[in-house]
Amino acid sequence: MKAVPVGVSARHIHLSEEHVELLFGKGSSLTEMKPLSQPGQYAANETVEVIGPKGGFPKVRILGPTRKRTQLEVSRTDAFALGIKPPVRESGDIAGSAGITIKGPAGEVTIEEGVIVAARHIHFHTSDAERWGIVDKQRLSVRLHGERGVVLENVIARVSQDFALDMHIDTDEANAAGAATGDTAEIIG
Amino acid sequence: MKAVPVGVSARHIHLSEEHVELLFGKGSSLTEMKPLSQPGQYAANETVEVIGPKGGFPKVRILGPTRKRTQLEVSRTDAFALGIKPPVRESGDIAGSAGITIKGPAGEVTIEEGVIVAARHIHFHTSDAERWGIVDKQRLSVRLHGERGVVLENVIARVSQDFALDMHIDTDEANAAGAATGDTAEIIG
Repeated sequence: MKAVPVGVSARHIHLSEEHVELLFGKGSSLTEMKPLSQPGQYAANETVEVIGPKGGFPKVRILGPTRKRTQLEVSRTDAFALGIKPPVRESGDIAGSAGITIKGPAGEVTIEEGVIVAARHIHFHTSDAERWGIVDKQRLSVRLHGERGVVLENVIARVSQDFALDMHIDTDEANAAGAATGDTAEIIG
Repeated sequence: MKAVPVGVSARHIHLSEEHVELLFGKGSSLTEMKPLSQPGQYAANETVEVIGPKGGFPKVRILGPTRKRTQLEVSRTDAFALGIKPPVRESGDIAGSAGITIKGPAGEVTIEEGVIVAARHIHFHTSDAERWGIVDKQRLSVRLHGERGVVLENVIARVSQDFALDMHIDTDEANAAGAATGDTAEIIG
């Protein structure tokens, strides 16, 4: 059985260095609260407010380190609450995605693009992928077991020496399946 | 292909006659706003507020007609917001389920049980079920197509002369699948 640990991603934001300074003040930088499953990634102590045309969320966790471009990842449920229509995209693929206003203690910024619903994906270390004959960008079908069992299709394989084995789904997917972080999913095709 | 129309159920409540009078005043009754897909069922003009230990929703739609016992149906996302842990159940099976406070213009009531996450199900008219060889209570696997394609397992078949063909899923399931009311699902097993 090709078993993969499940990690449920709540709404979160990645900020550019420029936006960290703009939102938290000149010379500010993110501080680590706790490490994430992927090596080098962490949840920061800092949060921001995000504001859409219909509603907002007062405390959205920032994930570090900073990235080249700011990216807000929300569930479709969140998107309805905000009043925006972000596309389902892979992380980093933000051209033509949705906009949002971001507010920090020292300032605010409105981005024209950068809001996405993250496409479900599995991080594979190269050794896991080789063992199972899986290649980068492959689309997989993955079963989550249980009373609300589902098979998620079009799960994107992402393979790298820098990754740890982990399937990332959002809160809608987790709730639809009755799943939680730490559950085990099964690649079935 | 065994094609079934999809109906997405947002959070809603069914009230007992006693609770309609308690919440809206002695002698009150529900008034119809619009009919639902199942014959005789309707969305009422009336709404109530529901309040859990962690949060509430100010306007929850009442579905009529009245039932023997009051039942609130929420998504798992809603349940987290309310701060309650309702079980996944078929409609009507509320013994030992979660409680909630319900507030109307004329009064409020706290129920000890009656809050569930509705188990996904398909209503079949007897003729549809016979044509496809499906029996009441059977568990089905159903595919929702698209970019966020999923196969929902453990979909409960409910067969009656009084039903119209329709698959009922909640907002978490719809959002996880990128699906909406009016889409077509496919029974695959």
